[in-house]
Amino acid sequence: MTTALTPVAPAAAPTAPIRSAGATAPGLPDLPPPADTAVFDRGESRVRLYCRTFPVVLRRAKGARLFAEDGRVFTDFFCGAGSLNYGHNNDGLKAALAAYVAADGVAHGLDMYTVAKREFLTAFRTHVLEPRGLEYTAQFPGPTGTDAVEAALKVARKATGRSGVIAFSGGFHGMSRGSLAVTGNGRARRAGGVHGQDPVTFVPFEDGPGGAFDSVGLIERLLDDPSSGVETPAAVIVEPVQMEGGVRPASAAWLRRLREATERRGILLICDEIQSGCGRTGDFFAFEEAGIVPDVVTVSKSLSGYGLPMSLTLFRPELDVWEPGEHTGTFRGNQLAFVTATAAAGLWSDEAFHRSRAETARALAEFGAEVADREPAIRVRGRGAVLGIDLAASGGGARAAHVQRYAFDHGLIVELAGREDEVLKVMPPLTIDPAELADGIGVLRAALLNRI
Amino acid sequence: MTTALTPVAPAAAPTAPIRSAGATAPGLPDLPPPADTAVFDRGESRVRLYCRTFPVVLRRAKGARLFAEDGRVFTDFFCGAGSLNYGHNNDGLKAALAAYVAADGVAHGLDMYTVAKREFLTAFRTHVLEPRGLEYTAQFPGPTGTDAVEAALKVARKATGRSGVIAFSGGFHGMSRGSLAVTGNGRARRAGGVHGQDPVTFVPFEDGPGGAFDSVGLIERLLDDPSSGVETPAAVIVEPVQMEGGVRPASAAWLRRLREATERRGILLICDEIQSGCGRTGDFFAFEEAGIVPDVVTVSKSLSGYGLPMSLTLFRPELDVWEPGEHTGTFRGNQLAFVTATAAAGLWSDEAFHRSRAETARALAEFGAEVADREPAIRVRGRGAVLGIDLAASGGGARAAHVQRYAFDHGLIVELAGREDEVLKVMPPLTIDPAELADGIGVLRAALLNRI
Amino acid sequence: MTTALTPVAPAAAPTAPIRSAGATAPGLPDLPPPADTAVFDRGESRVRLYCRTFPVVLRRAKGARLFAEDGRVFTDFFCGAGSLNYGHNNDGLKAALAAYVAADGVAHGLDMYTVAKREFLTAFRTHVLEPRGLEYTAQFPGPTGTDAVEAALKVARKATGRSGVIAFSGGFHGMSRGSLAVTGNGRARRAGGVHGQDPVTFVPFEDGPGGAFDSVGLIERLLDDPSSGVETPAAVIVEPVQMEGGVRPASAAWLRRLREATERRGILLICDEIQSGCGRTGDFFAFEEAGIVPDVVTVSKSLSGYGLPMSLTLFRPELDVWEPGEHTGTFRGNQLAFVTATAAAGLWSDEAFHRSRAETARALAEFGAEVADREPAIRVRGRGAVLGIDLAASGGGARAAHVQRYAFDHGLIVELAGREDEVLKVMPPLTIDPAELADGIGVLRAALLNRI
Amino acid sequence: MTTALTPVAPAAAPTAPIRSAGATAPGLPDLPPPADTAVFDRGESRVRLYCRTFPVVLRRAKGARLFAEDGRVFTDFFCGAGSLNYGHNNDGLKAALAAYVAADGVAHGLDMYTVAKREFLTAFRTHVLEPRGLEYTAQFPGPTGTDAVEAALKVARKATGRSGVIAFSGGFHGMSRGSLAVTGNGRARRAGGVHGQDPVTFVPFEDGPGGAFDSVGLIERLLDDPSSGVETPAAVIVEPVQMEGGVRPASAAWLRRLREATERRGILLICDEIQSGCGRTGDFFAFEEAGIVPDVVTVSKSLSGYGLPMSLTLFRPELDVWEPGEHTGTFRGNQLAFVTATAAAGLWSDEAFHRSRAETARALAEFGAEVADREPAIRVRGRGAVLGIDLAASGGGARAAHVQRYAFDHGLIVELAGREDEVLKVMPPLTIDPAELADGIGVLRAALLNRI
Repeated sequence: MTTALTPVAPAAAPTAPIRSAGATAPGLPDLPPPADTAVFDRGESRVRLYCRTFPVVLRRAKGARLFAEDGRVFTDFFCGAGSLNYGHNNDGLKAALAAYVAADGVAHGLDMYTVAKREFLTAFRTHVLEPRGLEYTAQFPGPTGTDAVEAALKVARKATGRSGVIAFSGGFHGMSRGSLAVTGNGRARRAGGVHGQDPVTFVPFEDGPGGAFDSVGLIERLLDDPSSGVETPAAVIVEPVQMEGGVRPASAAWLRRLREATERRGILLICDEIQSGCGRTGDFFAFEEAGIVPDVVTVSKSLSGYGLPMSLTLFRPELDVWEPGEHTGTFRGNQLAFVTATAAAGLWSDEAFHRSRAETARALAEFGAEVADREPAIRVRGRGAVLGIDLAASGGGARAAHVQRYAFDHGLIVELAGREDEVLKVMPPLTIDPAELADGIGVLRAALLNRI
Repeated sequence: MTTALTPVAPAAAPTAPIRSAGATAPGLPDLPPPADTAVFDRGESRVRLYCRTFPVVLRRAKGARLFAEDGRVFTDFFCGAGSLNYGHNNDGLKAALAAYVAADGVAHGLDMYTVAKREFLTAFRTHVLEPRGLEYTAQFPGPTGTDAVEAALKVARKATGRSGVIAFSGGFHGMSRGSLAVTGNGRARRAGGVHGQDPVTFVPFEDGPGGAFDSVGLIERLLDDPSSGVETPAAVIVEPVQMEGGVRPASAAWLRRLREATERRGILLICDEIQSGCGRTGDFFAFEEAGIVPDVVTVSKSLSGYGLPMSLTLFRPELDVWEPGEHTGTFRGNQLAFVTATAAAGLWSDEAFHRSRAETARALAEFGAEVADREPAIRVRGRGAVLGIDLAASGGGARAAHVQRYAFDHGLIVELAGREDEVLKVMPPLTIDPAELADGIGVLRAALLNRI
Repeated sequence: MTTALTPVAPAAAPTAPIRSAGATAPGLPDLPPPADTAVFDRGESRVRLYCRTFPVVLRRAKGARLFAEDGRVFTDFFCGAGSLNYGHNNDGLKAALAAYVAADGVAHGLDMYTVAKREFLTAFRTHVLEPRGLEYTAQFPGPTGTDAVEAALKVARKATGRSGVIAFSGGFHGMSRGSLAVTGNGRARRAGGVHGQDPVTFVPFEDGPGGAFDSVGLIERLLDDPSSGVETPAAVIVEPVQMEGGVRPASAAWLRRLREATERRGILLICDEIQSGCGRTGDFFAFEEAGIVPDVVTVSKSLSGYGLPMSLTLFRPELDVWEPGEHTGTFRGNQLAFVTATAAAGLWSDEAFHRSRAETARALAEFGAEVADREPAIRVRGRGAVLGIDLAASGGGARAAHVQRYAFDHGLIVELAGREDEVLKVMPPLTIDPAELADGIGVLRAALLNRI
Repeated sequence: MTTALTPVAPAAAPTAPIRSAGATAPGLPDLPPPADTAVFDRGESRVRLYCRTFPVVLRRAKGARLFAEDGRVFTDFFCGAGSLNYGHNNDGLKAALAAYVAADGVAHGLDMYTVAKREFLTAFRTHVLEPRGLEYTAQFPGPTGTDAVEAALKVARKATGRSGVIAFSGGFHGMSRGSLAVTGNGRARRAGGVHGQDPVTFVPFEDGPGGAFDSVGLIERLLDDPSSGVETPAAVIVEPVQMEGGVRPASAAWLRRLREATERRGILLICDEIQSGCGRTGDFFAFEEAGIVPDVVTVSKSLSGYGLPMSLTLFRPELDVWEPGEHTGTFRGNQLAFVTATAAAGLWSDEAFHRSRAETARALAEFGAEVADREPAIRVRGRGAVLGIDLAASGGGARAAHVQRYAFDHGLIVELAGREDEVLKVMPPLTIDPAELADGIGVLRAALLNRI
């Protein structure tokens, strides 16, 4: 293929194909020519997943729109599992990236000093940490969320001299061995050969398929009983909003109790903000709403703002117990990501961005309320710019799959979450155009409430 | 930030500053204005490493050259720990990247089908696998080498139903929990809380600080004794050339014996080519020289060719035992990396590239022979475009540090390896300009043989 | 033995009869100077425990009485931690033992067939298993309780092909590595280097220092959530009455729920009857009261009836998945113990024994009720022939230690249990003479209720 | 016991005297029909082992003789796997035991002070430790060898603060989880669910099926390489003579190198003398010949001298880092065993015993030499009163099984050892009557050299 990479002007035709391909069609869209996927079938592992749900070959993307090579256009309510909170190929970030590439800025820097890294550290402090009164030291642990979790667990163990960790059912922290050991998903654990031989204690989350649970009460009971079988751990790791677990926000009261319970016992609290952070579920961090300050925070996904691999492990300065080089990694210095992340951080001082973010959240909440009102058996959860529509008691995973398929056929990408994929996880770009948002919601409304 | 990202024309002034800053100076160079590193001191973790050895703030890079913000220019004989085999910001790759960004090509794609991914799979098959008669299925396990190793270990365990792994002393495979468990480095293991509780058996490598060792003999002895305490493992993981371990190539005979010993017992052989591969130590893969075909191969570092995070786990098609989604990861689809990796793969069908690669290897070998001849106590090892100059018996780590410091002061970046950092690991870009290579070698010669 | 052996101050009346009863008896060594403990101080490890609480050198024992070499006599309300339910040197058992020794019966038999072992198997089936409608296969796993637990865990894992185990806070199962991994006691775990790396999940018991807990509810919640982080285990191991944990009987309803919850999920239920069994807490097994049938049962302590090391792992015949010799041990065939155990089993068909056992239980219950009535803040628990007097809310461990010390000074041996040794664990021989029992209770009453 | 008890066919002459010696003896149960093993078949687990090799129901034993209920008499060259070094029901020990039982000596004492325990400690010091210049503190860790090993590993880990252990291929240390983790036998490990997740490093022994190996060289190589993957362990555990592994004595030179290598690195050396000790393979301890002093020693099997469960963990006094009660166990105070062990210790000051022991060793060595001379392909190994006849190169396990079966049919019990049960392990009582020894050897000679 040669013309494949020819740029298509962002301002061009997308609207029409969308309509024809999906949203306005009463039934299933005309099928486009079959995508050329033989290369994948022949050469890529069966492990691939999302391409099965969304069988389309993507070429171009902009804002909330994904453009397939066969001409179809999709609105993206999935956003790279939360990696594209600012939309695809955000213009401001793109400009910075293009200029940096053009100027032969250092692209790969290990953990050496670079101008790009310094710019990022400065911007992140100025626009994110300082306005929130947070004083954290930043470690670049490698470019992915699981790297951030691995480093968080290491630093917690080294700083406390303890090895145990308490994690929550339904939690998801990554696929490398250390992160998997604190991840609840049984299928992933089995595939990873993790059979409970790590010093990790799982406790039901505040909310889950089994209903409400007094997690902090159980933790305190175990830790205050010298014969409980559970030692005081190095850390408790928690997602303030469990995303993969089914869009389940912890309450502020619960988070505060957890913070108090850990603080009193000298246990570090790690907030995993990999999916909930960067503005997805409230302010920059999900934990802010509860007024707590975690000891360690992991950030990734939308950190670069452009979908580029980048992550951070933040911790209180006194926890910086590392010796130089004790945790390394070739791609800790993804300079292109630093460049876009610097620009993305700047958005947090931009009023327009905040207005857009608030409007997106408002529209989602409104739709959530409508759903709950129209069909009370559907449990609607959400916070900020994520909406979880839980169909467990109203059709379950089968209905969710149907909605997802209908949406895809009508030009909308939306992903499922929850134990049995019974929860629609609605997460459009924070910066989505209100009309695009309304269109996408319209598709969901049709699929969900009109019982198409 | 304003002027920071202003492009500096690649063709401009670098030569002069280099000369004045380093290579031709008989003594230490004039000190440039102190770098502005306060931001790092305040906000970045103590864990950072290379910036301590090379205290300079980098701005721009091209080919074998690194340009600091204070005007100093460095020749790079380290290449991002092997991530920049084609040099910094290689023009061909840069053009593809810039065009893709400009065209709003999908930047983040999870594991969905994209044009960019298909292009890469096609190019990698065409230019790398097929010419070598290799038939591998590719898994995109996440963007870093350690992700590739984690996936390799998982697939080996799942495919065989066994849990044990045999690894080698001196081996380095990554810093996440699963990879660290097969990595020998004691300091990293302790920092990671890895205390031998994984089913990993370590065996001395063919070559190490203790001298030659009959590794395969020991493995066979352990596996053929039903009371050895060591079960038949899922896999043996090996670097055909141990790079971090001190630039120690395994002999072809040893690799063949290892391949036979594993094959006969139904044990998978994983070749970790993360640092040795992509042309650094011979042909594309280091294992090719031995004529063996591993069951699983991990590739990363120079895979994208541009220093962007990307990795592959390759395995024999019949080992593709994954269920969809059993191993996931947000950044498995780093599309920008796919774009540059596609261009990089194309280089392997480019005669000029091969000539350049051969010339680089020849010059390094020549210098190695010169060193060995001039100072027989120095043990010189190397293969392809890497040279290890082992000073263990001739000054040790102190001398190596002195050489490294002298080189830095004269505008040359070179890294150390080995247990006590007693080995100079010389790895210039494969595509380095012969004159630049000669200059860099000249600095090393001066530091090493003139005993400056 | 007569009631003339009432305990008194060492210098008082009992000295003479005791001395004559001991020193002149054939077979015992010459009487050394009283309280000669220098040999222990010099040559025995600091790990010794009970001799610190009860600093006296014992020589002879009969029924409920212990005779010290310095002339003191003690009533034994501890019974070798439950190993002497039939009293010390029970005459019937003694006669069988002496005759066997005199006849040169095989003393050590590995796991070969012996007449003594056959007699035991027959008697145990006739007097214990058959009358209760139990059909179990017996494994002689080694002579101690912890051997029985190790074998139980092995057989559960082998039969199910799973590795996990659910255990309860406050549980005690033994000090070897496998048993310790399912034991809650933090101090013992730390001393054993058990830091949670085994696939064991701890759940609070029905009753504990933190109050009542819905253990079965938590277990079901964890097992029914595929993302809980806890896999379906091989087994749940439970003491129907937690003895070391503070004399805490599980309710019949709770045990039935646990049995149902495990049965429904194909999880084996292991009842550890090592201390609760052999008639201590109800009928032969503590689980009988609940009407459940465990899959695996461990028995030891009073099994031999004479305090000799012996244990059994019982399991449903279809769980006998062992290959010959997969679990061995030199002392699996303690023939002297088989001889006394055969006689002890016969007691279970002896009406007089049952009357005595009932009378002991009645007197304890009566005393328990008196205590609870006189001082409601004392929590009294018990079942059968064990009484737990919990002083947690009424003086705590300090008061318990005081009572214990007072008792010792007045000729009564009683042990403490519970997390902080705050529970008096009263367990006289089942066959104790009513007057001796009343005497002992009188000492406790004086110490406890008269607040001496 | 007279020489009239020469083994013969069951139907022949000996029947009468044996039956009269057995059936009419007081204390043994009435004689059932011969070979009544239905009770075992119905009620005992399939895990039983030795009764399969030696299908006979034993009733009585004396010295080197075992008397079956069907009248057959066997000479015992197995001795309870080394638990009966002083023969069955040794008269001196029996007298002490009978007197103690008759006198109602304390039978079960937990870890309280007793006269019997003091006598043992004194006797063991006087007759065993002091004459050898050994100063050890004694822990009674429970009644079996595996208890001694569990305690040894715990104390080593606690004293050093490290967790790793180095163990040897072919070693056998017990069946509880901690001991199994340092035991090489793959079958036992798999049955115990031990899959290498313990921090144990296995190293080939000095001698094994793979031939000679430089074990200490490998250990030093691993420990002196900071990137070997193996940390400095808490301890090295070794049997000075591997008994289960095939009767393989370590050379004195090898043991001394091992002692030096461990001492220099602050690693504790644990000598497991459970089967090799108590005079079986040289002096009291097998390690004495090498002139080394281990830090920790485990003793069991023949310690009580009567086949009663008893064990000791001995360690240098400065290693007594236990807190009281950190390792407990109900049967740590097997008082009947203390009584016989006291008498057994006294034998070590008895000239007649030493003469008998030396004579037994001499006769075995002579037979070994004869075998080696007659059939050089048979590898004969031995030390003291154990002879290993290795048929690996001369018929293997099949021939060994044939010899064993022939011996059994001719009234001789002899056990096999080695990976494939290819080694005859000849271990008669140290005190065997020379004529009985000659008879037994005669049976072996016939089976082995006459190729019957």
